[in-house]
Amino acid sequence: MDWNSWNHLIAMAATVAFAVTAVLAIKGDKEIDLFAAVVLGLITAIGGGTVRDIIIDTPVFWATDLTYIWVAAVASIVAFYGRRLFAHRKLFGLMLYLDGFGAAMFAIQATGKTFDLGFAVPAGPVILGVLTGIGGGLIRDVLAGRTNLLMRPELYAVPILLGCILFQLILSYLPEYRLLGSALCVFLVFGIRAAAIHWNLQVPMWARTKIS
Amino acid sequence: MDWNSWNHLIAMAATVAFAVTAVLAIKGDKEIDLFAAVVLGLITAIGGGTVRDIIIDTPVFWATDLTYIWVAAVASIVAFYGRRLFAHRKLFGLMLYLDGFGAAMFAIQATGKTFDLGFAVPAGPVILGVLTGIGGGLIRDVLAGRTNLLMRPELYAVPILLGCILFQLILSYLPEYRLLGSALCVFLVFGIRAAAIHWNLQVPMWARTKIS
Amino acid sequence: MDWNSWNHLIAMAATVAFAVTAVLAIKGDKEIDLFAAVVLGLITAIGGGTVRDIIIDTPVFWATDLTYIWVAAVASIVAFYGRRLFAHRKLFGLMLYLDGFGAAMFAIQATGKTFDLGFAVPAGPVILGVLTGIGGGLIRDVLAGRTNLLMRPELYAVPILLGCILFQLILSYLPEYRLLGSALCVFLVFGIRAAAIHWNLQVPMWARTKIS
Repeated sequence: MDWNSWNHLIAMAATVAFAVTAVLAIKGDKEIDLFAAVVLGLITAIGGGTVRDIIIDTPVFWATDLTYIWVAAVASIVAFYGRRLFAHRKLFGLMLYLDGFGAAMFAIQATGKTFDLGFAVPAGPVILGVLTGIGGGLIRDVLAGRTNLLMRPELYAVPILLGCILFQLILSYLPEYRLLGSALCVFLVFGIRAAAIHWNLQVPMWARTKIS
Repeated sequence: MDWNSWNHLIAMAATVAFAVTAVLAIKGDKEIDLFAAVVLGLITAIGGGTVRDIIIDTPVFWATDLTYIWVAAVASIVAFYGRRLFAHRKLFGLMLYLDGFGAAMFAIQATGKTFDLGFAVPAGPVILGVLTGIGGGLIRDVLAGRTNLLMRPELYAVPILLGCILFQLILSYLPEYRLLGSALCVFLVFGIRAAAIHWNLQVPMWARTKIS
Repeated sequence: MDWNSWNHLIAMAATVAFAVTAVLAIKGDKEIDLFAAVVLGLITAIGGGTVRDIIIDTPVFWATDLTYIWVAAVASIVAFYGRRLFAHRKLFGLMLYLDGFGAAMFAIQATGKTFDLGFAVPAGPVILGVLTGIGGGLIRDVLAGRTNLLMRPELYAVPILLGCILFQLILSYLPEYRLLGSALCVFLVFGIRAAAIHWNLQVPMWARTKIS
């Protein structure tokens, strides 16, 4: 199996995780139907990248590789009917980690894509990296009427931001280490996120506050 | 009157229905002003198609035919000042049916447009058809702080989805029946929607559930 | 200092005002972190113009002038840590007026840009002018879970609408007075807004109502 196939396989795993966590995130007293579950799963999986492609004005990524659509749709349907299974603590935990890994990978990949297009370097690749990582989840939360991650103290977006800045620096000053650098940044982002999930870490107090 | 004139007339009737139902949907204890009514009416009428055109990267449809804008704006103003009149059960019922017909027509038309561009066939025409039919209403509900149709068990989006899939199949395998097929799909979608309005049908239980 | 430098300086002052008022607007019982403050500040400052550029299909304005990004980011950080300072009645008042001036300037400038592209004249320049003036704030309010300005009786958007219509008329019928006309429209919009802030003016009753 070559590098591209690996990359694609990981992207698909991340797509599954995005769609599944999206469907499982709708809980509590809200009722949802299969159609809405698939829409929310799809939006979470492909929403961030779609907005990125619109802003940098390239064809949306899923238009030429529909696997993203099929995988996200099937994962959403499975998650909808299998939510009792996925609600098992261990499987749900696995999905949370996969979601963190997916966000890391999509964000770093987006930073690279935006940098290659020379779009608004150096701020652009970082902004669009973060947008790709968290944008789909934001749209999902708005549509589902949930409090989105910007308004929660969860450590989710900040590691992504740090990773995108680091990768942008590597692309600018150490372009010969691009491959190694991208892997490093993905694992850095995922590492912090995994620690945040495991130890329930939150944004430190000096960087947040009750505004009154 | 030729086919194109008919088509345009129907599109305008649908635009009126979208704008009017949008303005009438803002009720209860929420206050709204004329400006907001026109903005919400416009967004409902042209929002879905605008997002579609941005994703498939063609000029937004109303840029070259401003009739959509004028009709939606005037309909919103009339609905705002005439809401007592429109609140009459029969007239509001007529608007509900017209809204269903408009969503059906816009969605099927969008599936055709996307298919002709060869955009992400076969998933793309279906996704963008559904988006065109329900997107404007989703943006309106988010801006108006209402529970949007994804989170309601109303049978609204699913008939649109079925109609877009059917029309996509006709375009792929029976292109010579395009005209007949589009009319058939619009009436299929509208028929299910009309039945849903008349008998207050909801998404069947096997396809929805309280996730807990 | 030439005209362009002045223009740029004013745009930067407006960007600061948009970002600062965005961060200060998040209050009450909601907690927010530094990252979210910067995201909301950035979106408020550049969101409206970004959506405008996507709709009229030109490169997003900040891609070629990153000063907008840096200024908005730094202003958001300063506002986040200095919110006690900014909460002083006089400084917050200054920001409110600057925000009104920024919205006026961005909107009139957008009407001109859209008109020059010949996009959907005459409705297009007005619609995109208003969108540029209020769009960023709308997205911020949706993400922050606040009631957005469409659902408040504050006199904010209507003066912008009037100014954009007037400027559109000047561009169409008195193009030789463009420079003078743009200044006039900005001060008209700002004048009404300043009066609305000072005397706490609201949309007149004949143009709003409790829909019931």
